[in-house]
Amino acid sequence: MDNAIILMSGGLDSTTVLSFAKKNGYNITGLSFDYGQRHRRELESSKKIADFYGIQRIVFKIDLRQIGGSSLTGDEAVEIGKLERKEIPNTYVPGRNILFLSIAAAYSELLDARTIMMGVNSVDYSGYPDCRPNFISSMEQSLQHGLDRSDLKIMAPLQYLNKGEIITMGIKNNAPYELTYSCYNGREKACGRCDSCLLRLRGFMDAGEIDPTPYETYPDFYIDYLRNLKKYKK
Amino acid sequence: MDNAIILMSGGLDSTTVLSFAKKNGYNITGLSFDYGQRHRRELESSKKIADFYGIQRIVFKIDLRQIGGSSLTGDEAVEIGKLERKEIPNTYVPGRNILFLSIAAAYSELLDARTIMMGVNSVDYSGYPDCRPNFISSMEQSLQHGLDRSDLKIMAPLQYLNKGEIITMGIKNNAPYELTYSCYNGREKACGRCDSCLLRLRGFMDAGEIDPTPYETYPDFYIDYLRNLKKYKK
Repeated sequence: MDNAIILMSGGLDSTTVLSFAKKNGYNITGLSFDYGQRHRRELESSKKIADFYGIQRIVFKIDLRQIGGSSLTGDEAVEIGKLERKEIPNTYVPGRNILFLSIAAAYSELLDARTIMMGVNSVDYSGYPDCRPNFISSMEQSLQHGLDRSDLKIMAPLQYLNKGEIITMGIKNNAPYELTYSCYNGREKACGRCDSCLLRLRGFMDAGEIDPTPYETYPDFYIDYLRNLKKYKK
Repeated sequence: MDNAIILMSGGLDSTTVLSFAKKNGYNITGLSFDYGQRHRRELESSKKIADFYGIQRIVFKIDLRQIGGSSLTGDEAVEIGKLERKEIPNTYVPGRNILFLSIAAAYSELLDARTIMMGVNSVDYSGYPDCRPNFISSMEQSLQHGLDRSDLKIMAPLQYLNKGEIITMGIKNNAPYELTYSCYNGREKACGRCDSCLLRLRGFMDAGEIDPTPYETYPDFYIDYLRNLKKYKK
């Protein structure tokens, strides 16, 4: 059985990756980061998800507030999501995936894991350059050189899927989406307004599924979707 | 004036790089890591060296003891240096430079720096794969992709110099070698026995210079060298 390290944010994408890895028989260690994020709810979620799957989970502490420059760790208000936005959103921690992969690589030595898996996605994503395929393949090569391990692989099984396809995959694999948390605001219920909530709800709509997560409010498109679904079911 | 971030370990190589950058007119921010190293002396040294040059210095805290697997952060004894050794020494923190460069990259965004400089060297080095040119050039590309900044450069001005040539460069640039600290053991005086001390002393010998650092003991080759130097000077 191959050892794999999976970057676990406690969100929908990384949980789908976990369900994929489980189905494919990997021996999994989850790696979560306590980086001073505002939405610490995601750490609780990743713990619940690790418990659900009965896998080992590491929480690596690294205080990215030392660097600053992002509303995900700072005090700046989170932007209200606009799905069509082109510029890089202010929730960006510069090169966060570069860092997370570096740490995963160090653990891969210790845990004798040849595979690092992560839930990056270049279709329904927020425009972060460190989610793009050219970054992932370049970083894989850098880790191979930097650790002198030509067999090390970064797998990004969601890379070319849209959110609806990701959710379809996860539901087929029985991913525990009710335990996941995607909202940027980190309150008890997901806000239903931020970029991450909007992408998630649109994904469930596209997949023809219902998001089990409780929301403070729903965007109009999702309310319409639920109404139509109800009609259809009648 | 170009902004540059220089990885500062407080050792001889990074101080030589600093002297090079100063000479070439960069606006420098030093970046040191408080990573749970045993030889915390290097943090004191990097502070003194930053003060000497009057540059801004950032100390980023990241506890690599969380990962373990290395005598530089753990409790395992440091190996006695053997210059001819081929295998990777046990002072290796897996992929430390990958991590350090990732953090420097994040700061490069914040500080609007296009250049990251570091003192890696592939001639007189300890065999770490994350010091080799193929890693450095691959990592430069990864950072460019991951930050979407095609102008970001990793400069490694010592890459192809041997230790003697590095020291010759530093002395030409008036590098304050008396403030540097290279020993793996971190005691008041350098041990004169570990890999790092042996490389350093051989470098001073090759450069025809005298190391201003106080040592607990000197290896035979350096004692012979000092004796011959004395003879010569008579």
